[in-house]
Amino acid sequence: MIENVEKLRDSKWFSNLTTIIIIVYASVLGFKTLGDVSTEYSALWHIVDYGVNLYFVFEIAIKMIAEKKFLNFFKSKWNIFDFIIVTITLLPLESSGYAAVARLMRVFKILRLFTARPELKAILDMLIKAIPAIIDIVILMFIIFYIYAIIGSFVFSELPSGLWRDFLISMLTLFRVLTFEDWTDVMYEAMEVHPWSWIYFISFIIIAAFVFFNLFVAVIIGEMQKLQEQDMKNDLEEDHKKIDLILEELQSLRAEVKELKKQ
Amino acid sequence: MIENVEKLRDSKWFSNLTTIIIIVYASVLGFKTLGDVSTEYSALWHIVDYGVNLYFVFEIAIKMIAEKKFLNFFKSKWNIFDFIIVTITLLPLESSGYAAVARLMRVFKILRLFTARPELKAILDMLIKAIPAIIDIVILMFIIFYIYAIIGSFVFSELPSGLWRDFLISMLTLFRVLTFEDWTDVMYEAMEVHPWSWIYFISFIIIAAFVFFNLFVAVIIGEMQKLQEQDMKNDLEEDHKKIDLILEELQSLRAEVKELKKQ
Amino acid sequence: MIENVEKLRDSKWFSNLTTIIIIVYASVLGFKTLGDVSTEYSALWHIVDYGVNLYFVFEIAIKMIAEKKFLNFFKSKWNIFDFIIVTITLLPLESSGYAAVARLMRVFKILRLFTARPELKAILDMLIKAIPAIIDIVILMFIIFYIYAIIGSFVFSELPSGLWRDFLISMLTLFRVLTFEDWTDVMYEAMEVHPWSWIYFISFIIIAAFVFFNLFVAVIIGEMQKLQEQDMKNDLEEDHKKIDLILEELQSLRAEVKELKKQ
Amino acid sequence: MIENVEKLRDSKWFSNLTTIIIIVYASVLGFKTLGDVSTEYSALWHIVDYGVNLYFVFEIAIKMIAEKKFLNFFKSKWNIFDFIIVTITLLPLESSGYAAVARLMRVFKILRLFTARPELKAILDMLIKAIPAIIDIVILMFIIFYIYAIIGSFVFSELPSGLWRDFLISMLTLFRVLTFEDWTDVMYEAMEVHPWSWIYFISFIIIAAFVFFNLFVAVIIGEMQKLQEQDMKNDLEEDHKKIDLILEELQSLRAEVKELKKQ
Repeated sequence: MIENVEKLRDSKWFSNLTTIIIIVYASVLGFKTLGDVSTEYSALWHIVDYGVNLYFVFEIAIKMIAEKKFLNFFKSKWNIFDFIIVTITLLPLESSGYAAVARLMRVFKILRLFTARPELKAILDMLIKAIPAIIDIVILMFIIFYIYAIIGSFVFSELPSGLWRDFLISMLTLFRVLTFEDWTDVMYEAMEVHPWSWIYFISFIIIAAFVFFNLFVAVIIGEMQKLQEQDMKNDLEEDHKKIDLILEELQSLRAEVKELKKQ
Repeated sequence: MIENVEKLRDSKWFSNLTTIIIIVYASVLGFKTLGDVSTEYSALWHIVDYGVNLYFVFEIAIKMIAEKKFLNFFKSKWNIFDFIIVTITLLPLESSGYAAVARLMRVFKILRLFTARPELKAILDMLIKAIPAIIDIVILMFIIFYIYAIIGSFVFSELPSGLWRDFLISMLTLFRVLTFEDWTDVMYEAMEVHPWSWIYFISFIIIAAFVFFNLFVAVIIGEMQKLQEQDMKNDLEEDHKKIDLILEELQSLRAEVKELKKQ
Repeated sequence: MIENVEKLRDSKWFSNLTTIIIIVYASVLGFKTLGDVSTEYSALWHIVDYGVNLYFVFEIAIKMIAEKKFLNFFKSKWNIFDFIIVTITLLPLESSGYAAVARLMRVFKILRLFTARPELKAILDMLIKAIPAIIDIVILMFIIFYIYAIIGSFVFSELPSGLWRDFLISMLTLFRVLTFEDWTDVMYEAMEVHPWSWIYFISFIIIAAFVFFNLFVAVIIGEMQKLQEQDMKNDLEEDHKKIDLILEELQSLRAEVKELKKQ
Repeated sequence: MIENVEKLRDSKWFSNLTTIIIIVYASVLGFKTLGDVSTEYSALWHIVDYGVNLYFVFEIAIKMIAEKKFLNFFKSKWNIFDFIIVTITLLPLESSGYAAVARLMRVFKILRLFTARPELKAILDMLIKAIPAIIDIVILMFIIFYIYAIIGSFVFSELPSGLWRDFLISMLTLFRVLTFEDWTDVMYEAMEVHPWSWIYFISFIIIAAFVFFNLFVAVIIGEMQKLQEQDMKNDLEEDHKKIDLILEELQSLRAEVKELKKQ
């Protein structure tokens, strides 16, 4: 019987069914918008919400039963993710005073779409794996931001726009400058008081852009190196072995010819 | 006679003639602009329009005759595309009440430029082939947009600008934020009511940009892998075969030497 | 004597001298700005301008003499470029009524910086070579722009901002939308009259960005393919030849062993 | 004893301790912001500042002692960088009239984070190495900027916005146009006086973007070439040697067979 449950869990149509249910639920949620839902909380919507909860419990039960040992279920981080979401959505928050929180909770159900499709799981795993490769660049960017924010909040703190009034706001303003979002407005305001402050902005943009540019190139080259090591070496390994075999064959042939000569 | 028609169809000057006719037609259409055309519908323009229609019918007839079997013509999706456009432009819509539609229809004739040049056909085929490689990322982006739009339309719905008044408008606002288009105006408005809402915007930008960044790298690496498999393996295959031949030669040589020893 | 002139022409310090003279001239021109120059045309500036003209004539004379045949000088397109600029700057336009044109002409002298440095010549040659690889994409982009401009100038022509008042202005507006420059202002204005016009803008941005994205990937992959063909094949060719040699050696060895058996 | 100091210097926890101390110091500095610090200069902050100075002196002493020869310490440019920062922060500027300068000096201490982490040192070394690869493109961009700035400050100098009032401001305006920051405002203003000035802006954007695009591709291809030369050639070298060995073996074998025939 466990084998049948396992088959069900791994079947294409089961994951497709979950996907469709979540998408339909997401569409209903999207078109009614959370704001309207609060005013005219129709009976139909209540049933849909309840039904999806029920299906999620059913689906997670299938996944639990399919494991040979119950605790294996919690070895996959995606399963833990599913379990937490389903548990949270089952909490009876609506009857309590936290109705607004309960409504927002529904959004989290849609997060289950990540785990419903194996393809998306793979992409997410890839994205998570890509994080360490850029962590050092993130630290570097943070240092650049930090230094410019300290200087900015020190030199430009008195500007009327208040874009540099404290350290955190200065960081936000620098992020804005990096996205090129009305950065000249920020610069022109600073230049009225300190005419040479364009050096501050231009140097920040060029340094930050240069770091990003190199990050980009480094990641592409890094990925390519991995690719070549995998792909090419597998390909050449066969040749390596055959060349070694040829050498051995030749050496033993030569030994035999030597013996022949002694005869 | 069919061979001559086939030669005509495949000739460089025939495709060039079609290209030039469409470009001239496009230029006339562009410089007169559709608006003016409606007011002073000159006889000359009528003739040009009629002449292009005639040429299109002639050209498609050539393509039909050149096929050995008539139905083969409809096996190419580009031919079907041509056929539909020519058929639509021949409909006598102008005499009816749909004059505005008829005028807009002329624009579709310019779409035939895609099929007039084989180089553009190849690029379009390449672009269409590239779509499946990014379909999963599109789904992922949609989920990210969806979750942020739900949260945005829930938390910021009361803002006076109306940028978050319903789900669809919130999606549009998020797309705007992703293009960095005056995104700080959107953020500053939200921060006046919810001071910590910068976390919403910064996290959205960083997550979406990170996904795009990885998409970019993944596509480049994927294309490169294909390239290497094609290019390199062809190149090494020859070596593989020769190395196998050397091994065989060596083994039979050794066998012969062994025979020699027995003598 | 021609050999000495040739040595002079190819010497590092001669090209460096030309570079420095042009940069100094460019700096003086930049800091005085053309506007001020017209009002207080100092004697010093007149001498500098005259001196640079003289040096250019001297330098081009060196290049002409260094060629064995005089006409070889005009075989290089860079030399023709130099010759035209020097000829133009020597025209006595200042004494005539075209003083403004004469002043602008000075700017063209700075263009000679391209030919003064061999490294920049190489980069420019590379850039010019890169053009054909993207010409088809340019045509494709033009078609996309054209179709959207026709639709835009037809549907949005009555908008008060006048951004779609004729075909050319519509093209310009679309270019602006592609650079994400206040594109939402353009869209929101259109959406007030035609609420569904966001489809027009979003589809344009996604299609144009997708085409650019693929262009980028295609160019990188194309360049890589060239690189691999050059680099790798040279590298493997040696192996190819040796493997062929081994095969020949083996076959003649086998023939000899066969002869040995017959003895 | 020097060996123990050397071990201490190279130990992971020592570099981690330095990192943590700098980050804690940076956080305190960030959240108090330099502005407030000047008003209520608490005793606690004074102690923290003093303690960090002490730790820096201690750390640099460790690095100096760990070297076998004292002067070796100054052979690493990172050590010189550390030494200068520590020396500057020890200057008794606060008691003098330059209190504002002294406060800003604290920011420089955070620059030591670059040298505290070996990973960041490596990234910075990589970034510095990447500069020469793009220096020619920087020169090229400067020429393009220069020519457009000269033309701009000549043709548009009378515009009321003052964006082209002198050469330096024109350069700044062009940089703004390149970042697509409200570039249409600049263009529309110019088009009111010179209707055809859109050619100036569109051509500048296309040329500059094209140069950047090619720079990007060139850098990626250049890095890849290096990678292939390193990675692949190491890989194939082994094969090369073995193939040479096979050839030698074969030739000596053939010589022996020839001798055998003579017998």
